[in-house]
Amino acid sequence: MVHFRICNSSKFLVTVKFIRYKTNISVFFRALTNISYYDGRMSELHGFLPPLTPTGKSAIIPEMPWYYSGTLLTVEYLTDPTKVRAILPPDIDLAPEEPGAVALIWADWQSCSEGGAELLDPIRSQYLETFAVVRCSYEGVTYSRCVAIWVTKDFAIARGWYQGYPKKIGSAHVTRIFNRGQASPRLEAGAKLGATLSAYDHRLASAVVTLREPSETNGFVNGHAMLHSRFMPSITKDAGLSMDQLITMHGIDADLGQPWKGDAELVLGDSQWDELASILPVEKILGGYYREVGVTFAGGKLIADRSNPV
Amino acid sequence: MVHFRICNSSKFLVTVKFIRYKTNISVFFRALTNISYYDGRMSELHGFLPPLTPTGKSAIIPEMPWYYSGTLLTVEYLTDPTKVRAILPPDIDLAPEEPGAVALIWADWQSCSEGGAELLDPIRSQYLETFAVVRCSYEGVTYSRCVAIWVTKDFAIARGWYQGYPKKIGSAHVTRIFNRGQASPRLEAGAKLGATLSAYDHRLASAVVTLREPSETNGFVNGHAMLHSRFMPSITKDAGLSMDQLITMHGIDADLGQPWKGDAELVLGDSQWDELASILPVEKILGGYYREVGVTFAGGKLIADRSNPV
Amino acid sequence: MVHFRICNSSKFLVTVKFIRYKTNISVFFRALTNISYYDGRMSELHGFLPPLTPTGKSAIIPEMPWYYSGTLLTVEYLTDPTKVRAILPPDIDLAPEEPGAVALIWADWQSCSEGGAELLDPIRSQYLETFAVVRCSYEGVTYSRCVAIWVTKDFAIARGWYQGYPKKIGSAHVTRIFNRGQASPRLEAGAKLGATLSAYDHRLASAVVTLREPSETNGFVNGHAMLHSRFMPSITKDAGLSMDQLITMHGIDADLGQPWKGDAELVLGDSQWDELASILPVEKILGGYYREVGVTFAGGKLIADRSNPV
Amino acid sequence: MVHFRICNSSKFLVTVKFIRYKTNISVFFRALTNISYYDGRMSELHGFLPPLTPTGKSAIIPEMPWYYSGTLLTVEYLTDPTKVRAILPPDIDLAPEEPGAVALIWADWQSCSEGGAELLDPIRSQYLETFAVVRCSYEGVTYSRCVAIWVTKDFAIARGWYQGYPKKIGSAHVTRIFNRGQASPRLEAGAKLGATLSAYDHRLASAVVTLREPSETNGFVNGHAMLHSRFMPSITKDAGLSMDQLITMHGIDADLGQPWKGDAELVLGDSQWDELASILPVEKILGGYYREVGVTFAGGKLIADRSNPV
Repeated sequence: MVHFRICNSSKFLVTVKFIRYKTNISVFFRALTNISYYDGRMSELHGFLPPLTPTGKSAIIPEMPWYYSGTLLTVEYLTDPTKVRAILPPDIDLAPEEPGAVALIWADWQSCSEGGAELLDPIRSQYLETFAVVRCSYEGVTYSRCVAIWVTKDFAIARGWYQGYPKKIGSAHVTRIFNRGQASPRLEAGAKLGATLSAYDHRLASAVVTLREPSETNGFVNGHAMLHSRFMPSITKDAGLSMDQLITMHGIDADLGQPWKGDAELVLGDSQWDELASILPVEKILGGYYREVGVTFAGGKLIADRSNPV
Repeated sequence: MVHFRICNSSKFLVTVKFIRYKTNISVFFRALTNISYYDGRMSELHGFLPPLTPTGKSAIIPEMPWYYSGTLLTVEYLTDPTKVRAILPPDIDLAPEEPGAVALIWADWQSCSEGGAELLDPIRSQYLETFAVVRCSYEGVTYSRCVAIWVTKDFAIARGWYQGYPKKIGSAHVTRIFNRGQASPRLEAGAKLGATLSAYDHRLASAVVTLREPSETNGFVNGHAMLHSRFMPSITKDAGLSMDQLITMHGIDADLGQPWKGDAELVLGDSQWDELASILPVEKILGGYYREVGVTFAGGKLIADRSNPV
Repeated sequence: MVHFRICNSSKFLVTVKFIRYKTNISVFFRALTNISYYDGRMSELHGFLPPLTPTGKSAIIPEMPWYYSGTLLTVEYLTDPTKVRAILPPDIDLAPEEPGAVALIWADWQSCSEGGAELLDPIRSQYLETFAVVRCSYEGVTYSRCVAIWVTKDFAIARGWYQGYPKKIGSAHVTRIFNRGQASPRLEAGAKLGATLSAYDHRLASAVVTLREPSETNGFVNGHAMLHSRFMPSITKDAGLSMDQLITMHGIDADLGQPWKGDAELVLGDSQWDELASILPVEKILGGYYREVGVTFAGGKLIADRSNPV
Repeated sequence: MVHFRICNSSKFLVTVKFIRYKTNISVFFRALTNISYYDGRMSELHGFLPPLTPTGKSAIIPEMPWYYSGTLLTVEYLTDPTKVRAILPPDIDLAPEEPGAVALIWADWQSCSEGGAELLDPIRSQYLETFAVVRCSYEGVTYSRCVAIWVTKDFAIARGWYQGYPKKIGSAHVTRIFNRGQASPRLEAGAKLGATLSAYDHRLASAVVTLREPSETNGFVNGHAMLHSRFMPSITKDAGLSMDQLITMHGIDADLGQPWKGDAELVLGDSQWDELASILPVEKILGGYYREVGVTFAGGKLIADRSNPV
């Protein structure tokens, strides 16, 4: 059986199937059954990101808004400010105060889009991420900036690349607080919460936070709007960046629990593929925080564009 | 360099290292440094299960007690009682009432042993399991019995084999209830909780439970002491069972939250390797339950032994 | 302890640490130890894709060229050409001959960049991917086009997004051909090779190819240069595409083994998140192929740019 | 609807369903349709290991024989013999020669049972394992003994527990040798093969073997029949071992490729849960080996039984 497309410049697709062991008549009959109407509607592709399909259902992530419910475990520490300076693009400055402050954050998320279908197939909804945030200054405004982040699911990678988070896949874990039984801390003074990060089978971070008391804040490093870079090199080798943008974004509709603060221990590691310990080494631990959070993301704002479509 | 063991029937291990390019004198010097005192203490191996080591730290699971904190999402349904009959050993009877009742349960656990070290490396502490429970009768007593179970971690497999749970590795997920944000149900009427099970990349179960109201019970199928079989075939092919025991066990120190009940949908599947849909097909859904639970396990009791050490 | 940045517009970063329980003198002493030289070299960031760091080692993928060694198992089949039409952008036409032909390909890869460091930490080097390819026509040239693809590692996702492959994470497996023992087919007539794909715990494809004889080709669908779309929506909701490119690319330095052809069976599936069965349903199996391949990727070429930097 | 079992001591199971809103007559009608014939055949359960079902298909592993095809990458080294002594049970002696020799082996397996069904769903067939082997002596015979092993699949754990391998789940990777392209060594002098092991996100071993020349052997440590312990504690806490056996086993029908030998580098690590570096530290590397192998397993032999069915 061989197909030939007879015509597809009109709104009809006529495909003739030559079935060789049949008579001419039966061949003509098959051909008639393969005239398809395929006007513009048939090639309307949908999806926020690839892959695009007629329904849009296959896209690695759906349209915004994206909703998040979860917990944040944060360790704030000081590194040498020259380490922060070294990880910022040349035109972005250090923050004017505490330029060496770093937050390493474990988020244990459940997330969904409008309608919440992801919640009923929870493997598509739940993920963890560990991310390193510093502060910086651009045109006189202080921002937070994520300089390293590992997530456990592909949809989270895709959202991150859209938002300028430099996401990779990692294995992240954080102690959960259950209300029953002896295998869980309670949300109270003395609670110990562990958190770990690994990528490509190398342990990159291990932390323990011991909660001491309710806190007025959840730390100060991840408290500003984010200043992120989005870029994509040209498909031509060494031809520059087809997309090169500086954008800002922040969550909306924050639904925040009472933060707790406490002491923290943190051990960072490197591997052949990751440099968490060497790009932002721990000089002095500032403290640890835990908070239940809900937030919504619905887009950000372009700050500068240096794209060079090549 | 070659080692020879000179003597190890005494309490000394003398190992002579012949280093060929050295003089006799230096060889004797090396030999003297390799006399080791190794009485019984050196070969005392520890560990609740393999592997055994001098410290016992490597054992796949530590000594009891084992503590559990988590949540249970349960779907109870009726299958044809002949299906339950067919999955019970010949000398174990159907339960006298509702013999076709089945509970399919998703447990989202954090667990640890004495001291709680697992909680600070949470990858070693957290796991999910999905298990099918029926009731049965033995010598006039009604028991619960787990006839199929999938867990996400190896330590959970090992505990299960000890307890007579027929554990395999699977991928289980269940919607979590967070207190903040729009990506989570709350524990209230109308809350929808999804749950799924897959093994070897085949989807075996998908459930949705819609909570309606607080409940007096968390269902009735998984409410008895467990009646389980523990067996291990002889290392000699077709030579019978080296271990063949009927045991009973149950948790202690239950710390139970308020159960909720509601409606449930459940779709079961088979694969080449698993028969959940065909061994216990859904005839009629009875309902769904959700409860926070804490429990401790500290051993059980032998009921019958038919082991034949071959 | 509080840091203040005194000056960073020059080539020196002076950070004053006020240690409150110390005298002024000791504070000045600490400050002197924190003068850092940080000219442009310190903020030169490297990396082909995020995250950027001073060394470039953390980038999710390194610079091209990228080398691949592996095997391809291919099932070619016909779907209704209107299905292919529907999955192409409006300005890309169906291929003039056999417009309904599809190749579903399992690639079992080992890959590395210049120097081959990935090969010695093989978790960073090995991955599988399953991808659906159709042919299409643009400005009179026939191309291959990947319309759906699942990979097992994050570095493969990143390479794909650069190349316009619409990659997501999946779980792919394919029977391997070992030279010894009874648990492997040999590369000979009658060899049966299985292949499966799952994503989010839903089985999307299961195939069996039975090799019959050496072949002149490895199929015809994936034989052209690729015509791919690369796009990224604006960070502003509903503001269009910041990057929107049509590019072409193909491997170089092909090092090809003898292809084998045979019969194939293929079962496709859908899930809430994937539409493989519904976007490209199997109408008629054409055949199966197996080939050992080596290839290098060193970039492609821009064909059209409709980017709108917003 | 309520079920009552009327009688199941005979060969009939009579289940009466009282459907309350129906008349007596319809109740009798329903009851008649639920008389089931369930003699011994209905409760014949099958399966080599749990779970047992009427078909036996669900068992975590099928009946022997089990077939294996794959590759072995081996690093042999010397540790202090007292370290080997310490990891052996008191009644098992050190090997008379080279008592401190250790083999750390990465096996990259495809395996199946009779009929080979696993090969067509390859996720059920493929796995890797990393295992540490020492030699020992029992009643005058020299044996090999596996003292630590990590595997990637549950069916491999189950086979191991049957065979006395102290298996846990780990993440193992080893460089593959492909015949095409630049992302693979060839089987020739100078080939470099990497191998890694991780468990619970802690890297436990990283090795590189550089092949130098064909070899007469594949090393000497893993060359004897295995002497393994199989044990299971009583379900009653602290009541001894319900099963406690010393067994021996070895593969049959070996189908062996040409071994290659070379240099090796090996770095071992510990974690909270594993002690590879501390139980068998590397004192001197002896060499590395690579070989393609096929083998069959069909059972072993009981050597001593100290089971105490409690």
